[in-house]
Amino acid sequence: MAVGWVDKLPRMKQFLCEDFLLENAFAATLYHQYAASVPIIDYHNHLSPKDIAEDRKFDSLTEAWLEGDHYKWRALRAYGVSESYITGNATDEEKFSKWSEVVPYTVRNPLFHWTHLELQRYFGISELLSPKTSANVYHQCGEQLANASHRCLGLLNQMKVEVLCTTDDPADDLSYHQKIKDGQCTTAVYPTFRPDKLYSIASGEYISYLSKLSENVGFRIQSLDQLLEAAEKRIEFFHAVGGRLSDHGFEQLYDVKYSFTQAKKTFEKVLQGKAPSEQEEHVFKMTVLLELCKLYHKKGWTQQFHLGPVRNNNTRMLRSMGPNKGYDSIGDFCQIKGLSRFLDTLDQADQLPKTILYNLNPRDNETFATMTGNFMDGSIPGKLQYGSGWWFLDQKDGMEKQLNTLSNMGLLSKFIGMLTDSRSFLSFPRHEYFRRILCNLIGKDVENGELPADEEHLGSIVKDICYNNVKKYLDFDN
Amino acid sequence: MAVGWVDKLPRMKQFLCEDFLLENAFAATLYHQYAASVPIIDYHNHLSPKDIAEDRKFDSLTEAWLEGDHYKWRALRAYGVSESYITGNATDEEKFSKWSEVVPYTVRNPLFHWTHLELQRYFGISELLSPKTSANVYHQCGEQLANASHRCLGLLNQMKVEVLCTTDDPADDLSYHQKIKDGQCTTAVYPTFRPDKLYSIASGEYISYLSKLSENVGFRIQSLDQLLEAAEKRIEFFHAVGGRLSDHGFEQLYDVKYSFTQAKKTFEKVLQGKAPSEQEEHVFKMTVLLELCKLYHKKGWTQQFHLGPVRNNNTRMLRSMGPNKGYDSIGDFCQIKGLSRFLDTLDQADQLPKTILYNLNPRDNETFATMTGNFMDGSIPGKLQYGSGWWFLDQKDGMEKQLNTLSNMGLLSKFIGMLTDSRSFLSFPRHEYFRRILCNLIGKDVENGELPADEEHLGSIVKDICYNNVKKYLDFDN
Amino acid sequence: MAVGWVDKLPRMKQFLCEDFLLENAFAATLYHQYAASVPIIDYHNHLSPKDIAEDRKFDSLTEAWLEGDHYKWRALRAYGVSESYITGNATDEEKFSKWSEVVPYTVRNPLFHWTHLELQRYFGISELLSPKTSANVYHQCGEQLANASHRCLGLLNQMKVEVLCTTDDPADDLSYHQKIKDGQCTTAVYPTFRPDKLYSIASGEYISYLSKLSENVGFRIQSLDQLLEAAEKRIEFFHAVGGRLSDHGFEQLYDVKYSFTQAKKTFEKVLQGKAPSEQEEHVFKMTVLLELCKLYHKKGWTQQFHLGPVRNNNTRMLRSMGPNKGYDSIGDFCQIKGLSRFLDTLDQADQLPKTILYNLNPRDNETFATMTGNFMDGSIPGKLQYGSGWWFLDQKDGMEKQLNTLSNMGLLSKFIGMLTDSRSFLSFPRHEYFRRILCNLIGKDVENGELPADEEHLGSIVKDICYNNVKKYLDFDN
Repeated sequence: MAVGWVDKLPRMKQFLCEDFLLENAFAATLYHQYAASVPIIDYHNHLSPKDIAEDRKFDSLTEAWLEGDHYKWRALRAYGVSESYITGNATDEEKFSKWSEVVPYTVRNPLFHWTHLELQRYFGISELLSPKTSANVYHQCGEQLANASHRCLGLLNQMKVEVLCTTDDPADDLSYHQKIKDGQCTTAVYPTFRPDKLYSIASGEYISYLSKLSENVGFRIQSLDQLLEAAEKRIEFFHAVGGRLSDHGFEQLYDVKYSFTQAKKTFEKVLQGKAPSEQEEHVFKMTVLLELCKLYHKKGWTQQFHLGPVRNNNTRMLRSMGPNKGYDSIGDFCQIKGLSRFLDTLDQADQLPKTILYNLNPRDNETFATMTGNFMDGSIPGKLQYGSGWWFLDQKDGMEKQLNTLSNMGLLSKFIGMLTDSRSFLSFPRHEYFRRILCNLIGKDVENGELPADEEHLGSIVKDICYNNVKKYLDFDN
Repeated sequence: MAVGWVDKLPRMKQFLCEDFLLENAFAATLYHQYAASVPIIDYHNHLSPKDIAEDRKFDSLTEAWLEGDHYKWRALRAYGVSESYITGNATDEEKFSKWSEVVPYTVRNPLFHWTHLELQRYFGISELLSPKTSANVYHQCGEQLANASHRCLGLLNQMKVEVLCTTDDPADDLSYHQKIKDGQCTTAVYPTFRPDKLYSIASGEYISYLSKLSENVGFRIQSLDQLLEAAEKRIEFFHAVGGRLSDHGFEQLYDVKYSFTQAKKTFEKVLQGKAPSEQEEHVFKMTVLLELCKLYHKKGWTQQFHLGPVRNNNTRMLRSMGPNKGYDSIGDFCQIKGLSRFLDTLDQADQLPKTILYNLNPRDNETFATMTGNFMDGSIPGKLQYGSGWWFLDQKDGMEKQLNTLSNMGLLSKFIGMLTDSRSFLSFPRHEYFRRILCNLIGKDVENGELPADEEHLGSIVKDICYNNVKKYLDFDN
Repeated sequence: MAVGWVDKLPRMKQFLCEDFLLENAFAATLYHQYAASVPIIDYHNHLSPKDIAEDRKFDSLTEAWLEGDHYKWRALRAYGVSESYITGNATDEEKFSKWSEVVPYTVRNPLFHWTHLELQRYFGISELLSPKTSANVYHQCGEQLANASHRCLGLLNQMKVEVLCTTDDPADDLSYHQKIKDGQCTTAVYPTFRPDKLYSIASGEYISYLSKLSENVGFRIQSLDQLLEAAEKRIEFFHAVGGRLSDHGFEQLYDVKYSFTQAKKTFEKVLQGKAPSEQEEHVFKMTVLLELCKLYHKKGWTQQFHLGPVRNNNTRMLRSMGPNKGYDSIGDFCQIKGLSRFLDTLDQADQLPKTILYNLNPRDNETFATMTGNFMDGSIPGKLQYGSGWWFLDQKDGMEKQLNTLSNMGLLSKFIGMLTDSRSFLSFPRHEYFRRILCNLIGKDVENGELPADEEHLGSIVKDICYNNVKKYLDFDN
């Protein structure tokens, strides 16, 4: 009975084959017949509007792929590679060669999948990246990158990106967004209002930021009321350029008593060059955030909260390189009481906008998912969204956990789905990755008798999650 | 090798078939031969003793199924349904119709399973609920609900419910429990002592609650000692009516220094109409709880702690509808230090009763499971129980996580198993759901060579978990 | 379609067969061809150097197996066994008999696997332990234990233990380590510097500990500077005896402001017989720890942090039996801010040693795994290691979670792998257990098309994780 248990002629599936991540026929049908063909609405990323406006050409795969990608940098560092080959002075070809050495050792990390998926999808390269193939891949991709098909607009076209939302500071003049509108880009590109700097009163650069914003709005900001007036002006401007979303990054929404009066005093104190206490800072931020959210509500916008990271853990590297260089990690904050208070306060005022909550610590998936259920008011399906696996969680396990938690605690069918949150034009296959995972989860349930084998119904839900839901939800044409 | 990987003739399992949730023959044998036939001891739920005593007849499936079921309400709201169809003025038939529209969009949520399991088990209806079948289902069930077989007692009979423990306030006169005893009910129905109100000194209704309790015990409660005297009288009374359990709901057991002296002073302060500070409230609650637990120990009772929720997140709806309307969610509290202190204090006094700990946040499964191991004293198998997946976790993933954690950290074989915690007479198939999941986990281990294929031994353990363990553990006849 | 879904002739795998835990041929090949044969480097355990030096002979399986094993004690207590059969006065044979009664009820707990794996590997016994086989197993093992092959050195030899690191107090004279060196032991046995007592100023035994340490170093420790001088002397001594690791146990690394000045004052206060406040204790501990870590860095050592337990929950049993008797459990502390601050402070001083972080609460896996990524500096592969599943997590689920998290968040390929952390000479099959689980995860990915079927490459990574990585990383010959 036991002998020969392990099949000596395994039915091995080829890496990255057509049915990649699809474990049965129903899953494959869902993906190929329903999910694969719908366009991409990438409603949150960090792509450069300038690159799009100018249809940037990348000189090498290093430039397109490794520049700014702190996921890859972390892998390189963990492998033991010296910084000169990562963010340092090595040539593009040397850097690429080093990366090729590391790739075979990223097995089981999402980078291994993404790397080969991107080589296949954008460049038609199926061989695995390694020191043996490195030079060939580098030169083949380099040639293709010179073509219009592989400049920014071409890359977006290849992936059928219908809508794309960048992330922009309130003080940004959005001139590139204007240029994009007037240009050849077939993707609709909208700005997202990300006002982190607008309330970062403890930052050393706050006063100079206020000056910039003041210029931008045409009056000097000297009080909290004026700050909010400036914010409203910018929100109007973003709206006129097509913006329908805001975005905010926080470790947590602080569980403090909001006070406009106290926030006003704190603002005055900061204007006088005095540092606020931590308590003052928290009250200020939450109070200003609350006012901003009311403005979003007025415009019918959707607000996004990215919660949970501990940023800049490595002071030495922060000093030498600045932020966002791969020295951030997942925090273990208490999220729920502060989040509940915030949403409840807006809801009590009948000014709670559509809201997407992104959670960085998977241990908190269930708390986030159930919190969204407390403020659904029947006004729109899935008014509060528990957002897709984010940053470190943007991989198979992370996506599956998010999808399963949402399924258990809410309505998966009303989910607005995936976004890349990426800084790279080569990241769009992550939508494909997500769609395969989604179809596979549903397909496995069907095979297991946990869902009825109703292809049409489940296929339509898949299409909804990949495209229809978010289109209706964000409603860019309103 | 890769082509044709996905089987083009899938061996698809039918939804909700006989072997639902059972993935191999060993699992199926365990379930059908051992688990399916044992009666149900539902040792914690929120059924209405009045409904049982009066053998309530439900006028429609809406009344039996949607009234009071905040799980379904949350799904309706998330779907975008207006409140009038949920808790509002729409007719029963309109409400049911709306629910039928939502059900097909609850795929992957436990509601989808429960809904169809309940239709099949109680009403013999195998077709899926949807707008197409809605009217038919509504009328078919309506007819059946008119029969004695589908009044409360009939529903309990159908499911072989041997014992059922309701949840009752200390001030309750338990008159319905008395009536049930004297009536035709073949299910033994016992009260559970749930004294949350007895120590809720920060509640606006505390003083009037004390009056009620005072009347109830026949003396005026004017000191903490008298409060405890009253509690003891009520515990004796519950015991006489067959009660052998208490139950308590807390966000967390506060990690404070217990002080009878301070609690006394706080009680006096509250009697004088002054509001206690949060610290006073916490010390009061924990101190009183400690005294109550000693009384349970004296009577040989089992105490239950339901820990972890954040209740009433939506103030607007709390004001308009009151509590328990679907606006609660999973909290992220620190549980362990306070829990350890509490159990340890009772254990040091040699007065720690049998205890069941229910955890609402799955991230804390391991901490709860290991905590129970610290106070096993050899007096009884599994003296401290890590309770079954609760509320939001009462679904396949949640149950599997609880069972796996318990298996890894303790003795699954001594687990006292499932309870519905439900407000509905149609929820008992959840025991079946649990039993299938349990058998499947064990069956998969056997198939995988991780457990020996000893059907008799594993079958007896399954029976123990589903029936024998809890019967011995709670010992209602002592 | 649905009827007959469950295979009526299941292809059941035999318990503990050759391909135990290996679910497909690729996994089996990885294990049998690559993982099985490499020696064991058990770089963290609690074995007794005295037992090794004296090649201890065990009088019975009870002595070898049950003495000191609080995992088994917890199972016995949970089963309802009285303490006399656990740590009490019952005879060895009675205790063994009781354990045999419990074992069949440990199904799904790792003890069930370990027990039978150890019987098979060390004693060639394949029958399952139960009351029926108890006497036979007891006597068979007893006979074998009398042979040289089953004394301590024989047991280590059987398992091909190449290196073994014990855990030792700074005040230990390491005389047994010297004796081992001079004896017949073919395993290299090194001490690990575990200075918990050195900074436990709130312990009632601190002053007497200082006296012992003072004698040991030959001068009286009367200031914090002298304490650190003593520590450095002992580190040098440990180094001379082959020590290349330190180890520290904490609930959490406290997120306090380090202050040498304050720590000095606190030390003086403690020397004067006064109790430090909790805040003073925390600052003292973190400050001293920081200085110790700088010393480790100077020597090129690796530091280990075991974080997360709540110890001694049961005061009654602590008083009667002392610590480490099975009354500890998993805590729910905030880990990240304090950990980040600590590592960052060392990194800023350019004195961060190689570091292994062990996490006891699986909910924090992702935070620990991402934290290691912040301080990789290219100096060595995987400079910061997210350590293997520890204590309660030393089982299949726990190991899989650790491996999956590490895979998703970092480089599995650079992982230094498994250690027993055990007090028993019979625990070494846990390396086999780990290796099978590792190979199975990789094998399943290959079968699933999520990794290319490159046996040579994946096999070499497996060998690296099981042997090569740790050998290079710890570099005992430097």
